[in-house]
Amino acid sequence: MIKVAINGYGTIGKRVADAVAAQPDMEVIGVSKTSVSSEAYIAKERGYPLYIADLSKKSAFEKAGIEVAGDVDAMLKAADIVVDATPGGVGEKNRPIYERLGKKAIFQGGEEHEVAGFSFNAHANYKEAAGKQFARVVSCNTTGLVRLIHALDQAFGVQRVRAVMVRRGADPDDIKRGPIDAIVLNPATIPSHHGPDVQTVLPQINIVTLAMIVPTTFMHMHSIQADLKTATTRDEVLAVFENHSRIGLIRKATGIKSNAQLREYTQDLGRPRTDLWENGVFEESVSVLDGKEFYCFQAIHQEADVIPENIDCIRALMGTVKDPEESIRMTNEALGLVAIG
Amino acid sequence: MIKVAINGYGTIGKRVADAVAAQPDMEVIGVSKTSVSSEAYIAKERGYPLYIADLSKKSAFEKAGIEVAGDVDAMLKAADIVVDATPGGVGEKNRPIYERLGKKAIFQGGEEHEVAGFSFNAHANYKEAAGKQFARVVSCNTTGLVRLIHALDQAFGVQRVRAVMVRRGADPDDIKRGPIDAIVLNPATIPSHHGPDVQTVLPQINIVTLAMIVPTTFMHMHSIQADLKTATTRDEVLAVFENHSRIGLIRKATGIKSNAQLREYTQDLGRPRTDLWENGVFEESVSVLDGKEFYCFQAIHQEADVIPENIDCIRALMGTVKDPEESIRMTNEALGLVAIG
Amino acid sequence: MIKVAINGYGTIGKRVADAVAAQPDMEVIGVSKTSVSSEAYIAKERGYPLYIADLSKKSAFEKAGIEVAGDVDAMLKAADIVVDATPGGVGEKNRPIYERLGKKAIFQGGEEHEVAGFSFNAHANYKEAAGKQFARVVSCNTTGLVRLIHALDQAFGVQRVRAVMVRRGADPDDIKRGPIDAIVLNPATIPSHHGPDVQTVLPQINIVTLAMIVPTTFMHMHSIQADLKTATTRDEVLAVFENHSRIGLIRKATGIKSNAQLREYTQDLGRPRTDLWENGVFEESVSVLDGKEFYCFQAIHQEADVIPENIDCIRALMGTVKDPEESIRMTNEALGLVAIG
Amino acid sequence: MIKVAINGYGTIGKRVADAVAAQPDMEVIGVSKTSVSSEAYIAKERGYPLYIADLSKKSAFEKAGIEVAGDVDAMLKAADIVVDATPGGVGEKNRPIYERLGKKAIFQGGEEHEVAGFSFNAHANYKEAAGKQFARVVSCNTTGLVRLIHALDQAFGVQRVRAVMVRRGADPDDIKRGPIDAIVLNPATIPSHHGPDVQTVLPQINIVTLAMIVPTTFMHMHSIQADLKTATTRDEVLAVFENHSRIGLIRKATGIKSNAQLREYTQDLGRPRTDLWENGVFEESVSVLDGKEFYCFQAIHQEADVIPENIDCIRALMGTVKDPEESIRMTNEALGLVAIG
Ligand SMILES: NC(=O)c1ccc[n+]([C@@H]2O[C@H](COP(=O)([O-])OP(=O)(O)OC[C@H]3O[C@@H](n4cnc5c(N)ncnc54)[C@H](O)[C@@H]3O)[C@@H](O)[C@H]2O)c1
Ligand SMILES: NC(=O)c1ccc[n+]([C@@H]2O[C@H](COP(=O)([O-])OP(=O)(O)OC[C@H]3O[C@@H](n4cnc5c(N)ncnc54)[C@H](O)[C@@H]3O)[C@@H](O)[C@H]2O)c1
Ligand SMILES: NC(=O)c1ccc[n+]([C@@H]2O[C@H](COP(=O)([O-])OP(=O)(O)OC[C@H]3O[C@@H](n4cnc5c(N)ncnc54)[C@H](O)[C@@H]3O)[C@@H](O)[C@H]2O)c1
Ligand SMILES: NC(=O)c1ccc[n+]([C@@H]2O[C@H](COP(=O)([O-])OP(=O)(O)OC[C@H]3O[C@@H](n4cnc5c(N)ncnc54)[C@H](O)[C@@H]3O)[C@@H](O)[C@H]2O)c1
Repeated sequence: MIKVAINGYGTIGKRVADAVAAQPDMEVIGVSKTSVSSEAYIAKERGYPLYIADLSKKSAFEKAGIEVAGDVDAMLKAADIVVDATPGGVGEKNRPIYERLGKKAIFQGGEEHEVAGFSFNAHANYKEAAGKQFARVVSCNTTGLVRLIHALDQAFGVQRVRAVMVRRGADPDDIKRGPIDAIVLNPATIPSHHGPDVQTVLPQINIVTLAMIVPTTFMHMHSIQADLKTATTRDEVLAVFENHSRIGLIRKATGIKSNAQLREYTQDLGRPRTDLWENGVFEESVSVLDGKEFYCFQAIHQEADVIPENIDCIRALMGTVKDPEESIRMTNEALGLVAIG
Repeated sequence: MIKVAINGYGTIGKRVADAVAAQPDMEVIGVSKTSVSSEAYIAKERGYPLYIADLSKKSAFEKAGIEVAGDVDAMLKAADIVVDATPGGVGEKNRPIYERLGKKAIFQGGEEHEVAGFSFNAHANYKEAAGKQFARVVSCNTTGLVRLIHALDQAFGVQRVRAVMVRRGADPDDIKRGPIDAIVLNPATIPSHHGPDVQTVLPQINIVTLAMIVPTTFMHMHSIQADLKTATTRDEVLAVFENHSRIGLIRKATGIKSNAQLREYTQDLGRPRTDLWENGVFEESVSVLDGKEFYCFQAIHQEADVIPENIDCIRALMGTVKDPEESIRMTNEALGLVAIG
Repeated sequence: MIKVAINGYGTIGKRVADAVAAQPDMEVIGVSKTSVSSEAYIAKERGYPLYIADLSKKSAFEKAGIEVAGDVDAMLKAADIVVDATPGGVGEKNRPIYERLGKKAIFQGGEEHEVAGFSFNAHANYKEAAGKQFARVVSCNTTGLVRLIHALDQAFGVQRVRAVMVRRGADPDDIKRGPIDAIVLNPATIPSHHGPDVQTVLPQINIVTLAMIVPTTFMHMHSIQADLKTATTRDEVLAVFENHSRIGLIRKATGIKSNAQLREYTQDLGRPRTDLWENGVFEESVSVLDGKEFYCFQAIHQEADVIPENIDCIRALMGTVKDPEESIRMTNEALGLVAIG
Repeated sequence: MIKVAINGYGTIGKRVADAVAAQPDMEVIGVSKTSVSSEAYIAKERGYPLYIADLSKKSAFEKAGIEVAGDVDAMLKAADIVVDATPGGVGEKNRPIYERLGKKAIFQGGEEHEVAGFSFNAHANYKEAAGKQFARVVSCNTTGLVRLIHALDQAFGVQRVRAVMVRRGADPDDIKRGPIDAIVLNPATIPSHHGPDVQTVLPQINIVTLAMIVPTTFMHMHSIQADLKTATTRDEVLAVFENHSRIGLIRKATGIKSNAQLREYTQDLGRPRTDLWENGVFEESVSVLDGKEFYCFQAIHQEADVIPENIDCIRALMGTVKDPEESIRMTNEALGLVAIG
């Protein structure tokens, strides 16, 4: 059993913890929090040992009825590998600690590529993780782009990609961030950083991205255009997506034409936390013009798509499973992830 | 086993179906839909026989891979009781059918009190349902008000209630309805219809309500002021709520101060469809000024709070369980509903 | 003086009326409404004779203190030309009336191209209007696209255009329409109708468009990519926009990066109804990659950009001013429209 | 001419500046900004001398084409009185500067009562300002409450007030603040600070207030209940509001039932920046139950209602006009403020 510590039990961390707990070859040896909150109660409910950064706050946790197992250092020492899911930028500050303790660690997309020097996606570069101490699972948007572009590139060759990302303004439980009634260019300059971020995993891809933020809370929406090297048909592209273990097709017959209806669907399906772990490609939108110009819309659940990637990344870094397909299969099976469509 | 048909498998109907299926003394003999949609796939997934209003549409369903069990009439004939969860106003049109077939039926809050002549709430008037053919489960807002006011009235006597309801604009999957950036008086006149609706269950209560609609999708927020007959303390009121099987207390230590964070919490708790079946009373807000003036904020999940009431109403109309507390206990246990707090 | 009737005094109609009233060579001989509303009070305030479709409603207007000048037929007879600003689809029903009365008429973008057989944009095809009875001013989105694409095509030649439009969900005063928390594909299929609509004015342009709707009320946001025929530089493109009478540059130094801040700016500038009549191109976003690949973001104020086009279209159909530049100059001067930047 | 400096040229400051410039007995001798932004361009456009806090930033302004008149100290020295419209909390830090320079100053509602020791509302306590160096114009919400409660108290006597405030989440041009899809209790405890804040102006009033924040940008909505001392009728209350110079009645015939439609109306009326300087009381909502229980809904434009109060406060502190009614008349006339309705 791989002993996994989750440093930072928030939006991403709590999902990684549940996903780890569901795997046959891993266990959660602890999760960490900085202050008492509803998520501390959830850790207790799940039975995850809770560690805290600052032991002087121990009594505040105990007063709230939450047992504290020790400090973060103690948690890290007990672990084989750490998934760092602290807020963007904190991971970089934590790296020296992992180095000092000689622990393998996985960082999230809020960190720069340089934090680990290696950016990970299970389908694209699983094997390159072998022997490394650190990896960064690329951000939700980049993960969504990489999955789709890599699949197209493998099948047809990708000449160039042009993508526009319409991003959610805040996570559903974030009551501070806006905007309320605005479309915000983020950035106003072109291109956005997402293109170069894709290239940390797929350096050969010619890609330009643009990004905006809108007043929604659930899922980014990508509009993707790609010029392909080999001529193909819509049916061939659909077949590629159907056969992909982390691309789901939102079938026309469902009538789903928005992220909101898609969430209702994952909720009705009983997905934990309504999570859409796979890319949600709208079947109706998949188009091939003149044989070589590909288009589609895809929904990317910001809180969820990186979760299975973190699980695969654990195995890739630990070296316990060599074959990417085998790890992906194990992860998906344990999560009950059968791509929609 | 009570054979239950759900006529109208939408927001409310799909939840009632799952709640019925979870009970030890009931079974879903069928659900109905008017057209192919994502919910039809969910019915299939759950294994509920699907009936359709208009058999000429059968082939459309079959083309989408969804088997049709027959028409609505066939479903109704096979049932002991019907839960009508069709859109507001359709229930009234369906009543003659239920009368013709001699079936018991439960209507929802989108219908007028007169559709059944009897408006139901499990804690307030369960026993009055005995022997009746029809009942109406009052609306989400009214259910939330009745639970709280009835509990206060039993414990302290209620002189008068003044409540302001800030309502969600649309259900989460409803992409058509607004508003987007407006606070809409609904109605602009005072009082709103909610006060009289409370009186269909609790006729003795002096109540004035005001209502607005805002651009949110999840849960109404009630601000409630009540003058009590007997002087009391904040702690006594909290004790009443703690002991109530369908009032939950949102503890201060969770840091939850909004419906959005509350939803995250029910989601983390693994509630099906993130449902908050109970009233969500904010502990911090519970106040008693000068011994007799009560205040609180409560969150009411529009899609969920009426679900356990529908289940109890089935037993109340069928006469299989005489004691309200026994039915409430059975319903809650089967749903896994232990009020938060 | 050209006598102009405005049939349909709503979002577009009230703006056209004020714009007509401001011109030296035109006068508003009447505006029409179907029912009493705040806009009827505004017509009264402005002193526009108010006509109504159904004279049986006259007393309702008079009870509200609003004088009625007669019915719509009377208004049309007194006019040289009609600007039809009724809701989408009503214009088509009105055309036979204009034919019967032998009146020239201008329709809006909610109608199909076929309603007039001629779609208008002042910079692109003013002279083609000569001698025609009917014209359609293309929709807000199409007007915004045509202005920019035509300018690029004149200057550098346009090989192909790929544009993604993020559209506002509802006009600011529309409290019924959503979505509230969703990104809605509209349509989910690719391409959207905007490309072909651009081609009703610029038939030679190769263009594919995609469109989404988001929960905002003010201005659409266009992300535009164009492959140019002739190599150029960012500075040359900026010069083209600077010299265009209906393209405004939102300067980097203003710090404006969203439609909301842009509205604050037009509001601070004292623009009537905060109207942005010109395209709002974000200076920072204007990019030329490898000499031939153009990019920019532009904000399009849905309620405003078609207004000056309607004014020019009046002169073009009436034949009173032959030179497009002369009409555009007259219109802009009368409105006080100096493009921002 | 009273020489007025506006320290902090933002949402409130830019409106105060225009209002001062419109008065016959005042002039704007300068406005201040901390960094280059769209508002700096507006100051230039209006011809207001622009002063900056930190002269080392002068070249940044000049590079953007904006002339700098000097530093804030220079501006203050040239003034008879300062309107401090810096962000909440900064005013308190500025007070020692005003003391040192011996300048009269007006603070805004983002400061505590103690910053000036005197909280101002023109109708309620104008005369008490005489001879004082400092005053605080109470916040937008408090100004709205004070106007209405004071008017009711003068006419009928007010026994107690219970008010629920549904507040806008962010100003229209604020793209950072949320919430996006949440109703946030602010605070979750009862009462909110607005009641005590009303009492800084009207100490005799028994008042309890509750407050929430919702995802809208324009105007707060107040729901007000008041028990009156003297029995009255709806018509008498309406007459009080009709005769009040800063309470407007939103007439039923306009069909306006929301803040969004109300903004459209002030926009159509040509109000600068669409400002609603007066309280917007919804005529339909004005109710008197059993002679003594008053209810209404009122819309309060957060950016605008304090503007005329700042102007009156200047005269009150300067002692140039003794009679409040005379100052209010002068202010309203100069602004062109005739209350709607
Ligand atoms: N939220 C998303 O949609 C999303 C998607 C993909 C990637 N990411 C990335 O995942 C990472 C985590 O983001 P999140 O949204 O889960 O953040 P979050 O704020 O929801 O959770 C962060 C957690 O870290 C804890 N924490 C804060 N400071 C800490 C410290 N110094 N030491 C230990 N724990 C600390 C907090 O208590 C909190 O529980 C970021 O890099 C982010 O960019 C987020
Ligand atoms: N949605 C809520 O928040 C909520 C809360 C409490 C009560 N209610 C009440 O519950 C009832 C149902 O509301 P909902 O929100 O579930 O509606 P819905 O629109 O989500 O679902 C209605 C379902 O009825 C089906 N239907 C439509 N017309 C039909 C017909 N003629 N015959 C049979 N089926 C038909 C539709 O296919 C759909 O599946 C209404 O009375 C409503 O007022 C709704
Ligand atoms: N609102 C926009 O953003 C926008 C932008 C560009 C083009 N358009 C187009 O302009 C046209 C008008 O749209 P709008 O937004 O101004 O609509 P609107 O609903 O704001 O106004 C329409 C007006 O027409 C009147 N009306 C309705 N039915 C009528 C009838 N049968 N006869 C006479 N008058 C009638 C109504 O009273 C109302 O005053 C549509 O074709 C629309 O697609 C609208
Ligand atoms: N915005 C509202 O709706 C509203 C309503 C009523 C009262 N108020 C109060 O008015 C005051 C101003 O609020 P606002 O919304 O106009 O703020 P704002 O942020 O829009 O504007 C503040 C201005 O002050 C300037 N500034 C910042 N720091 C400064 C400093 N140290 N010295 C000098 N200038 C500085 C900024 O450049 C900006 O121009 C606050 O007390 C606020 O609580 C605001």
